[in-house]
Formats: sequence, structure tokens, C-alpha cells
Amino acid sequence: MKVLVVNCGSSSLKYQLIDMVTEEALAVGLVERIGIQGSVLIQKANNEKYKIEEEMPNHKIAIELVLKALVDSEHGVIKDLSEISASGHRIVSGGEKYADSVLINEDVMRVIEDCVKLAPLHNPAHILGINACEELMPGTPMVAVFDTAFHQTMPEEAYMYALPYEFYEEHKIRRYGAHGTSHKFVAKEAATFLGKDMSELKIITCHLGNGASISAVKNGKCIDTSMGFTPLAGLVMGTRCGDIDPAIVTFMITELGMTASEANETLNKKSGVLGISGVGSDFRDLEAAANEGNKRAILALDMFHYRVKKYIGSYAAAMGGVDCILFTGGIGENGPETRESICADLAYLGAEFNTDTNKGLRGKLADISTENSKVKILVVPTNEELMIARDTKEIVSAL
Amino acid sequence: MKVLVVNCGSSSLKYQLIDMVTEEALAVGLVERIGIQGSVLIQKANNEKYKIEEEMPNHKIAIELVLKALVDSEHGVIKDLSEISASGHRIVSGGEKYADSVLINEDVMRVIEDCVKLAPLHNPAHILGINACEELMPGTPMVAVFDTAFHQTMPEEAYMYALPYEFYEEHKIRRYGAHGTSHKFVAKEAATFLGKDMSELKIITCHLGNGASISAVKNGKCIDTSMGFTPLAGLVMGTRCGDIDPAIVTFMITELGMTASEANETLNKKSGVLGISGVGSDFRDLEAAANEGNKRAILALDMFHYRVKKYIGSYAAAMGGVDCILFTGGIGENGPETRESICADLAYLGAEFNTDTNKGLRGKLADISTENSKVKILVVPTNEELMIARDTKEIVSAL
Repeated sequence: MKVLVVNCGSSSLKYQLIDMVTEEALAVGLVERIGIQGSVLIQKANNEKYKIEEEMPNHKIAIELVLKALVDSEHGVIKDLSEISASGHRIVSGGEKYADSVLINEDVMRVIEDCVKLAPLHNPAHILGINACEELMPGTPMVAVFDTAFHQTMPEEAYMYALPYEFYEEHKIRRYGAHGTSHKFVAKEAATFLGKDMSELKIITCHLGNGASISAVKNGKCIDTSMGFTPLAGLVMGTRCGDIDPAIVTFMITELGMTASEANETLNKKSGVLGISGVGSDFRDLEAAANEGNKRAILALDMFHYRVKKYIGSYAAAMGGVDCILFTGGIGENGPETRESICADLAYLGAEFNTDTNKGLRGKLADISTENSKVKILVVPTNEELMIARDTKEIVSAL
Repeated sequence: MKVLVVNCGSSSLKYQLIDMVTEEALAVGLVERIGIQGSVLIQKANNEKYKIEEEMPNHKIAIELVLKALVDSEHGVIKDLSEISASGHRIVSGGEKYADSVLINEDVMRVIEDCVKLAPLHNPAHILGINACEELMPGTPMVAVFDTAFHQTMPEEAYMYALPYEFYEEHKIRRYGAHGTSHKFVAKEAATFLGKDMSELKIITCHLGNGASISAVKNGKCIDTSMGFTPLAGLVMGTRCGDIDPAIVTFMITELGMTASEANETLNKKSGVLGISGVGSDFRDLEAAANEGNKRAILALDMFHYRVKKYIGSYAAAMGGVDCILFTGGIGENGPETRESICADLAYLGAEFNTDTNKGLRGKLADISTENSKVKILVVPTNEELMIARDTKEIVSAL
């Protein structure tokens, strides 16, 4: 069985065709500038890069080109579209409706539409992508995999905000979280690696990338996560502020003369380690600057580490302890210095960091705690596309 | 030595005259409705209540009446104003300038004035109170005790927000914290009770009242605290939301049609346990409603407890462990159920709660952990006025 995984953004589209026997990606592609002059598709397959530069005024034409690239006689990986058994679609918000992946039908489409107000930049693009697949591969089953689904098991005290209750009832303002597919994938991988079942573990999953979030996974269920109503909350991120005093937002408007949308833009795009350091949001640049003694770069990194450390402590308290702390995402997988700084002084939890194993370790599943560490510290590469493909396979196989 | 402790609000004034030999309050008074029709002064002294109903159009006249009440031949506690050696003034914000209490002079007054923008409701009232005391008791030394001072030892990574750096440089937007006088007082009391020096302890101080905050006190110094740029951040409070996704604030403005000041009002006055429960902000009412099965009251309490528990975990991580967790403030001192809920499942930290000692304990210094608990859990009644008087005495004695 081959599954096409589709992740549609407003002007971009990522895709993978995954062989579910080997779980390997046969082709990995990216389309950029959909609806903008200079559209381009780049597909990696058969150890080569295939590039199509052709105007793609909309998502349907983009997906048409994706399918064309997949069956291309020279650069493609399949002979006929009928080899694609199903497509799995990443959906940023499923609101409160779905705690699991689901076969797409009219009802599901209505929910994704209803959740546009919760993910105004993403859900509309997802709808375009699904409609295009439906038109171009009619009859091929499609599965929706929600970024919010894994977090739907949070108890009320974790997902509610201490705001007037009607904010929840009337406007659905609550914590939804994000990166759920990644948190679920790595938590499962960690359990397998430790030779245990998720249901017997308390795991803290640190997904650290340009967007960063952290979850508490108790007995296989997410009980808390750092992103909130939107992906702005929680950790210090590349350009996002994470948690701040909410009164700063009104101060920005009343005292600094910003509009609400300027404030939102500043908090999302000009804050985080970029805002503090003035250097950038890429951790390699930050670490280079810090090594040269740039004080604001050092501060930005210190703040990033400190926030993650505090969340680890917080989630250990939320679960009444922790068995495994794991790092994933671009920085989590490839930042040994980041992991070391975060894990310093966690011995009080029974988490003993192994600086030797950690040193130089990038992008590989590994145990970076000492042999006797009561709490296991792991690096677990994430693979959201594979998780989407697995969910898709499972649902389609049961049809 | 007798010290007059003054806490001026915009239309109210609390005061105590404290005998520094016995550290007992000779008189405790409250003036309300200053500048509003129906002003009233109530003083408790000599086991009786003395009430003056007289128009007080401004703070000077209010303080004049306070001094008159203190020397009143029938209801007073001193014969002559010369018996007052000094006055100690509670100041909500000293910004970044003062990490300790200080003798008031022109420079200090300028700083308190400069900090008006950080505490627009409080600092102007403090200035009125100081000026009135200066006029009415010329030559009597005055000391400023800042709510922010104890938190000034926080390291940069704890007090900075991940916002554009110029927000700090140009607008002084950072974490200041509040309740510092209380956190310092109870941390010291706890160390004394445990027969140790503050410098050898990691203490988490939970000040739980209608306004609530929590601090991490490592080796005698505050290294983090939950209130932020303003007292809105951190824990769930009586009517304040505490930490929320900052994007909710802009959502309230752009989607719910509020102005920034309406949003601020909602977050400060209509949120917290009041907003969630719809019952009220008084914990006795909430507990009564919860006992009758009111689901929103139960949720409000659960959220309150859960947030405190997460902060305890977070600060244990920040300090690399904890030796003592203490409860103070109206709810912290008088809420056995609250303490029990918060301390459930903290055994992973080595904190073993003693439900028997805790039961029914109200307003008394006591150990509520088990004998063998590695982490001591205490109830420590706070006394900000005494702390202000002690600082005042110390500074004035050194003159």
C-alpha cells in the first residue's frame, strides 16, 4: 500500500509518497509560491532532484503537477495513480470535534470549515488541497489527521482558561495545542525504544523547532501541552514570544500606540529569540553569535533553555513524576548544547544527563541519560508524515 | 521604638502603629472613601473599635485624622506624636531601582514618581501619603518599602520577556513581580522555623489570596516569581486570569469587538475563579458551591489548584530542587482543602503531605509535611506590616 501525505499551506504544499510495507518515503516534495508568480515544485526521489518551474495559479493545478511528477516516466516513482491507495491530509485544527484521525466525508469537511476561525491561515488551504485531491483522484479514500487531535484528552483544568465562562461556551476559547501528530509519534517511538507500553509511562515530549511546544503524556494520553488557543503560547520560539503577562498586550495598544493586529504581528513574527537577540531565529546563527560573546544572543538562548526547563518541571508536577523526557524537532534532534543546557540540574527529578552520549549526537534515536538514571532522557527524531501515513493506512484498511 | 506603617491606596489607607520591642501592633486602622462622600476611619486598639465619620477630601486630612486617632486621650495608644520614631511606607513599584528598602529623600521621591507608569493606580497614592506624613510629622524619618524590591535579584533569563529587545530598553517592559515584602517575610520565617539560614535553602513561597503569586527563593534570593510586568500574570486569581495565550487578548479586540481597556478590565476584574465559576471570587463561597455539586465552582477550584501545582513543579526545576514549600496569604493560611489539593501527588519531589496536621489548621505557623518528608511543607502566616516596620527600624537605627 502506498499513501500520499499532503500538507497544504496557503501558498505552499509539502507531500510525501510513502510505501507502507517498508514505511519509506518513495518521493518527498515541496511546492512553493502557489498563486504567486514564480511557482516551483521540487521533488526528491530515486536519489535525484526533479524541479518543475511552471505557473500554479491555484492548489488544484499544484496537486495536478504533484501527481504528474509522481508518475513521470523519467523522474517518477509509480506508473499509475491507481497505485496510490489513499491520501492523508494534515489538518491544523479540528477544534473539539476529533480526538483521532478520521476518514474524510461531508461531515468532516463541515467541521474543518467550522474550524477556520480557529486556524484562519491553515484550514482554508487544507480544504483547497482536499478538494483538489478529490477532483483529481476521485474515489481514492482521504483521511484527515488533526494537529489538535492528540491533545483532546486533556482534562478540563488543563484546557480551560480562567476567563469568563462564556468565552468558552460562545467563542470556543480554550487550549487546543498543536504539533499533536509529532507529540504522539515520538511518545510512541520512545515507549517502543524503552520496551514498554505507552500506557505505563509518564513522558514529557519536547518538540523544539522554530515553532516549539512541549506536552505531558501520561499513560498514553496527552494531559497538558504548552501551545494554547493558538500556537503563540508556551515556550520561547524562533519569532514567537510564548507566555507573557497578558497585560503587556493591552499596554502595547494603549501605551505604544499599536493596533491589535500590529501587536499580534509583533508577538508572532518579531519576538522570540529573534526579538531578544536581534541576530535571527536560526539557532545555528544564535549559537555562533553567542560563542563570539554577543550578550543578547546568549540571553536569548538562556531564556529559551530556562523556559523549557520550567515546563519540564511543571509537567512533572502535573503527572506526579516523570519516567522519560524526550527531545525532538529540528533543535531537539540536532542541538546537543540546547539539550545539555536544558537538562542541567534535573538530578532532583532523577534525570541524570549523559554528556558523552549527547555530544555531537544529531538526528538519531538515542538514550542520552546515564545508565542508572531513573528518568530516561531520549532523542527521538519525529516523522509527522509517517504518522499521518500510518493513521491513513489504519483507517483505510478497516474500510 | 514605635513605627507607623502606612499603606496608601487611591481612596483608602491602611495603617498600623507597631511597637518594635514587642513587635506588636498597638493600633491597626483603615480609612476608606478618601475624597469620596462618606469617608470613615476605623481603628482597632486596646481591644476596642474607634470610628471617626468625617469628610476627608484628601490624603493629608486622612493622615491628620489617623494621627489624631493615635494620640486620642480616650481611644489612642500614644500620648504624643514624638513617640513615633519613623514611618514606613509600602510602595507598589520601585521599578528596577531598588532591591531593598530605603530612607526616603528627594531622589527616592523622584524614582517613585518615575515608576507611576508601572503602577498607575498605586504610586500616585503613595506619593500623597508620604507628602502628608512629611507635612504633619516634619523631621520624622520615612522609609520606602517596595513590593518589587525582593524580586530584583531575579536573573535576566527570568525577568526578561521574549519580546523585541527595545520593549525592555525603551519601555522597561520586564517581569517585576509583586507581594515581594510578603514573600521575603515568609521565606525568612520559614528558615527560622526550620532552624536554618535562608542562604542554605531552596524555598517555594505560595502567597495565595484574592491576588496570588508564587516565588522561587534560592539561597535567600528570589530567582523567579509568577506575577510579571503587572499583577495580572501567573496564577489563577479571584478575578484575574493569570497566564493565558497572549493571542486571546488580540482576539478579544479584533473578534469580540472589545477595546483594549475593556479587555484589560475583563482580564483583571471578570476573570479568575469568578469568571469560571460565576459564583464569586471568595473561596468560602466557591467551596460551598462546589460541595453542593456546582460544576463550574468545582472546575474553578481545580484550575486554581492545578496552576499552583504546576508552578511548584516549575520552580523546583528552576532551582534544581526544593527544600521547603510554604503557604501564606488568606487562602494559603486558612484553606486546608486548597493546600491538600495542591500537594497531592508531590511525592515525586520528596514532599509528603500530612493530612492530619493540615486538617482544620488555620492562620498558624506549622509544619504540614510528614516527619520523614524530605521536603518540608509549611503554613506561614504573613505580616507585611511587620516586615515594613522591621525594615524601617533597621534603616532608621543606622542613621
